[in-house]
Amino acid sequence: MAGNSFGEVFRLTTFGESHGDGVGVVIDGCPPRIGLSPKDFVRDMARRRPGRNSIVTPRSEEDRVEILSGVFEGLSTGTPITLFIRNRNVDSRPYEILRQLFRPGHGDYTYFKKYGHFDFRGGGRYSARETAARVAAGVVAGKILEPSGVKVMAYTIELGGIRAGSIDLEFAEENPFYCPDPIAAERMERALAKAREDSDSLGGIAEVRVTGCPAGLGEPVFDKLDADLAKAVMSIGAVKGVEIGAGFEAARHKGSENNDPITPNGFQRNRAGGILGGISNGDEIILKAAVKPVPSIGQQQDTVDREGRPAKLKLTGRFDISPLPRIVPVLEAMVRIVLADHYLRSRTMK
Amino acid sequence: MAGNSFGEVFRLTTFGESHGDGVGVVIDGCPPRIGLSPKDFVRDMARRRPGRNSIVTPRSEEDRVEILSGVFEGLSTGTPITLFIRNRNVDSRPYEILRQLFRPGHGDYTYFKKYGHFDFRGGGRYSARETAARVAAGVVAGKILEPSGVKVMAYTIELGGIRAGSIDLEFAEENPFYCPDPIAAERMERALAKAREDSDSLGGIAEVRVTGCPAGLGEPVFDKLDADLAKAVMSIGAVKGVEIGAGFEAARHKGSENNDPITPNGFQRNRAGGILGGISNGDEIILKAAVKPVPSIGQQQDTVDREGRPAKLKLTGRFDISPLPRIVPVLEAMVRIVLADHYLRSRTMK
Amino acid sequence: MAGNSFGEVFRLTTFGESHGDGVGVVIDGCPPRIGLSPKDFVRDMARRRPGRNSIVTPRSEEDRVEILSGVFEGLSTGTPITLFIRNRNVDSRPYEILRQLFRPGHGDYTYFKKYGHFDFRGGGRYSARETAARVAAGVVAGKILEPSGVKVMAYTIELGGIRAGSIDLEFAEENPFYCPDPIAAERMERALAKAREDSDSLGGIAEVRVTGCPAGLGEPVFDKLDADLAKAVMSIGAVKGVEIGAGFEAARHKGSENNDPITPNGFQRNRAGGILGGISNGDEIILKAAVKPVPSIGQQQDTVDREGRPAKLKLTGRFDISPLPRIVPVLEAMVRIVLADHYLRSRTMK
Amino acid sequence: MAGNSFGEVFRLTTFGESHGDGVGVVIDGCPPRIGLSPKDFVRDMARRRPGRNSIVTPRSEEDRVEILSGVFEGLSTGTPITLFIRNRNVDSRPYEILRQLFRPGHGDYTYFKKYGHFDFRGGGRYSARETAARVAAGVVAGKILEPSGVKVMAYTIELGGIRAGSIDLEFAEENPFYCPDPIAAERMERALAKAREDSDSLGGIAEVRVTGCPAGLGEPVFDKLDADLAKAVMSIGAVKGVEIGAGFEAARHKGSENNDPITPNGFQRNRAGGILGGISNGDEIILKAAVKPVPSIGQQQDTVDREGRPAKLKLTGRFDISPLPRIVPVLEAMVRIVLADHYLRSRTMK
Repeated sequence: MAGNSFGEVFRLTTFGESHGDGVGVVIDGCPPRIGLSPKDFVRDMARRRPGRNSIVTPRSEEDRVEILSGVFEGLSTGTPITLFIRNRNVDSRPYEILRQLFRPGHGDYTYFKKYGHFDFRGGGRYSARETAARVAAGVVAGKILEPSGVKVMAYTIELGGIRAGSIDLEFAEENPFYCPDPIAAERMERALAKAREDSDSLGGIAEVRVTGCPAGLGEPVFDKLDADLAKAVMSIGAVKGVEIGAGFEAARHKGSENNDPITPNGFQRNRAGGILGGISNGDEIILKAAVKPVPSIGQQQDTVDREGRPAKLKLTGRFDISPLPRIVPVLEAMVRIVLADHYLRSRTMK
Repeated sequence: MAGNSFGEVFRLTTFGESHGDGVGVVIDGCPPRIGLSPKDFVRDMARRRPGRNSIVTPRSEEDRVEILSGVFEGLSTGTPITLFIRNRNVDSRPYEILRQLFRPGHGDYTYFKKYGHFDFRGGGRYSARETAARVAAGVVAGKILEPSGVKVMAYTIELGGIRAGSIDLEFAEENPFYCPDPIAAERMERALAKAREDSDSLGGIAEVRVTGCPAGLGEPVFDKLDADLAKAVMSIGAVKGVEIGAGFEAARHKGSENNDPITPNGFQRNRAGGILGGISNGDEIILKAAVKPVPSIGQQQDTVDREGRPAKLKLTGRFDISPLPRIVPVLEAMVRIVLADHYLRSRTMK
Repeated sequence: MAGNSFGEVFRLTTFGESHGDGVGVVIDGCPPRIGLSPKDFVRDMARRRPGRNSIVTPRSEEDRVEILSGVFEGLSTGTPITLFIRNRNVDSRPYEILRQLFRPGHGDYTYFKKYGHFDFRGGGRYSARETAARVAAGVVAGKILEPSGVKVMAYTIELGGIRAGSIDLEFAEENPFYCPDPIAAERMERALAKAREDSDSLGGIAEVRVTGCPAGLGEPVFDKLDADLAKAVMSIGAVKGVEIGAGFEAARHKGSENNDPITPNGFQRNRAGGILGGISNGDEIILKAAVKPVPSIGQQQDTVDREGRPAKLKLTGRFDISPLPRIVPVLEAMVRIVLADHYLRSRTMK
Repeated sequence: MAGNSFGEVFRLTTFGESHGDGVGVVIDGCPPRIGLSPKDFVRDMARRRPGRNSIVTPRSEEDRVEILSGVFEGLSTGTPITLFIRNRNVDSRPYEILRQLFRPGHGDYTYFKKYGHFDFRGGGRYSARETAARVAAGVVAGKILEPSGVKVMAYTIELGGIRAGSIDLEFAEENPFYCPDPIAAERMERALAKAREDSDSLGGIAEVRVTGCPAGLGEPVFDKLDADLAKAVMSIGAVKGVEIGAGFEAARHKGSENNDPITPNGFQRNRAGGILGGISNGDEIILKAAVKPVPSIGQQQDTVDREGRPAKLKLTGRFDISPLPRIVPVLEAMVRIVLADHYLRSRTMK
């Protein structure tokens, strides 16, 4: 009801604020006897960590995941798994200005309109910090999917208008932008450096591919697999657009071009992005997310204060230049969460 | 759980199949004392009706909405409102072929994989026929929003690659394509005629605008207003992409271009599409939906039968050439449903 | 949210009023390929039917169940099953008095306070008529449980203070009171006749036994099997008390008397009523429901009108003398519904 | 789905085990701007604390509530409130025996059947320890109800067969048994001492009264106020029976005795227990809970091990003799939680 839970069977509730004690998640519905230990979270939390490269805030977050409940002697028990990630070295003083002024492009204005009272420090509840809890939950979701061979991988196909021209998934893992194209990666780096000089920020597009997903996941009508994926992806702060398979290009295709012919060996092409009638068809699931530039920029901007009076705001400090590399593991996490949920849901229909 | 319900407070459950008794919806959570009679549904049901113009199936559906429960002496009672739309003149014989063969681009294949047993006649549960129930529910949602002055309007901005160059909302209401540009409308008509000749089909893009929406609707984190809108829109069969505000263009904007400056008189521009941090900001809400071409085409296509053996399928009969004009009222309905739900949800947080 | 749905996986939403078009239920979450036809409902609907014997209203209701959706060629499809039971021969004129006066013991007063506007004819939405939809849904739940050998049986152990002294379940099926004791059944009949003469009504106690329930159904903490059963049973209009196993007697037991010793062949006794820690233990599940007398009586009663002015109310017409025989199949239905739901839920935890 | 959440609008999810890091609760749906600080929890946590008197385990639990999220500068923010209560001084060694043997009357057996793997230390997830999180959540619920003047009070009306003969609510607050009758309290003390000598345990009955509840809370049909109260109360581990108002006595009343006549000044009596048709009528809400004796006793008991082989179990250590005094604040908490939820739900129907 109040929007902090997601999923039906594999159901998570995140909590916490950017400058409070920490952020966390309670996962209810994880089956028992799944191996889980704090070290399982290290890789994904590191992938999301700011300071991982030059384009994201170098705030030193350890992002160590504590398992507060639901795991006994290394195995899940079927009861709620609580994961908590403490905030460290948080200095809230720079945010005092937000007690009065709304940052353009952020949720300050709407939170004030909705709640009247909110924790504005560093974005509080609507900070990207909340996604740390999602990434942690995504690790558990991944454990559920693992035995079925489902693999989820995201990468940056566009940043600051620079498009990846080739897809090398191994390279994507190795470079700080999760860009699958070495040449584009270099150009992205330069574009980010330029944006930093200009006190500006950049957006981009990420793509997610799911391999090994069995046919039959997804519910008809409202909880279509693509509908739930669209919600999951759009629920990430900076995302402004979602495409499944051919996406907006499908709008320009003819039916004869857009239908994927079926053969005894599977589909002849994959314009559908692996989903038909809201249900996975066994082919690769492909989706794209459009990510807006980080709204926190060093340039002076017009805004108003809480009383509606005009004001100028110039943010100081160090901000991410683009949400993109950090959003990549969050996208992977959300897609895993949706798939784990639908995987467990599908068992009720056998 | 099984995917046929939507919304938290204003909660609807649709039921029914294309060639069964009819399709319907139970709405639980509609407040009492809202005026409602069968005639309230006439306009919207007619807008969605096939046969309304030359590009959609001329199946003669009256689509009269029966109110089976929840209304007493012309007013809602606060108990479940059940709306039922009987199927008429349904001839299921042409669909017997689907007992064996899967139509490319449709849900036949995935329904078979998921359920083993399904009503394949005319798409059964995954037929566009189901959206008649959504349109009916959208009328009730509209009644809830009406006193607040919220208005939702959708139209076709692109069809078969032809883009509307101007936006005349009155004209959009008058022409069979809901196209807001008279010149584009003519070209769309020709493109549709050409596609029909070619036994092919066309996709397009629809846009939805919401005026009068107060600031403060939407929940943070997962049930963001844009996330719920994305799910609602993507849950419509033919939709493959969703954009909020600047959408994929935002990915190429710089932060300084993409942030909407705030002034005492509101936002200076509306790249955000009326939503910040998942909550409405009081500005116009703007979203776009990419619609794929109708998968039913008269050309011969490769497919397989239920045993996986290769087959050729050539559909006969009359099909819609594009989902687009019919999807416009469905989009309006789904957006109204999301807004009515969040409007009622917002009352719990006062 | 608005209270008309029940269950998580096997989820039903009932709708309809006593004097409207009919009552019905949408069941979402029933697995596919379960055989279902209108004749499956005949026995249970007849058991619940008023007029079945001399103590319940002889309103001639056929209570024929129409399957409006979700069944194709005799098998469930996994999509929503809609069951509808038309109201017949309903004469609403006797209820005009309720436009002004509240009947003591009924929901008239509270519905008016809650909604301001409600369908008061024959109790409208809070009429026992609504339970016809539950009985229909219970038939579907029974089909899900059948292959596992789960059997649910309810009977009257007390009526008007007369207690059954012996339990003969076959006899319980044969007599109009569902009383398992032939001697008590005769005394109950006389007590009911006496109450009718006095223009009064009687309450009683029903017991439900579940055999064949496997160990492991139920969730810990809030959705304990006994907690969900308590809710299901208390959600039936006339029920004022629920006991699991020893119930209120357990309050007077010592621990050494109340613990059921465990042996290699099962539990040595069954004070627990088949549930430990909220989860079924494989033993018989036993619960009792206290049922208040029918509030509609022919005696003059004090009440007020909608403006709060004092009034006298003397109901005329024919009413049930006791809710008891009719409530027995409703109890069975609700218990089946809870079990089918938890049975399907348990699959997600494997 | 997995049973650890409760409530629709005021929705809580508890987590944690008896011998893990601690127990906690995430509350989603608490409105913003409600004053909340750690000291608000002190009184209720102390009331529930073992060691408060001679009849409950003297394990030294401080039960200090940490607010991990959702409160900023002393006020709730409308985002999830996370409350955490650390476990202290937990010695798990005495529980090693439970790795093999099931304790009669506890959930050991059923948890093993359901999950195969569970944290058996001190009852783990099904320990009464979990109720500490409920009591903490009940404090927040109380804050929501406070401005409306709703007051919830529970007390012990029977313990070990000794019934309170008079109701002095002030005295109930002062004595360790929450017994409202000084004479009965003394006898209860002796009965508990005797049971301890006998290495046995006692059950009892608690009563809850709610004053100041407005008419109109509760939903019809399934989420009746009494149905939700019954579930809430039965979800507390040791509860085996629930009565609303006259409860099982209503089964022996005649309609003329059981109907509460309505007058311009309210109801003439309160057999209904303040609820009609599932909705509060403005009168006092009264319910009773039957509590079984603590299953942990010092006597030798028959049981089996995980392989089903017969075994003898004699528990050592100190256990509560009766769940009763400790359950009283838990009952109050659960009733407050149900009322706060329905209070917020009722706002959506205005």
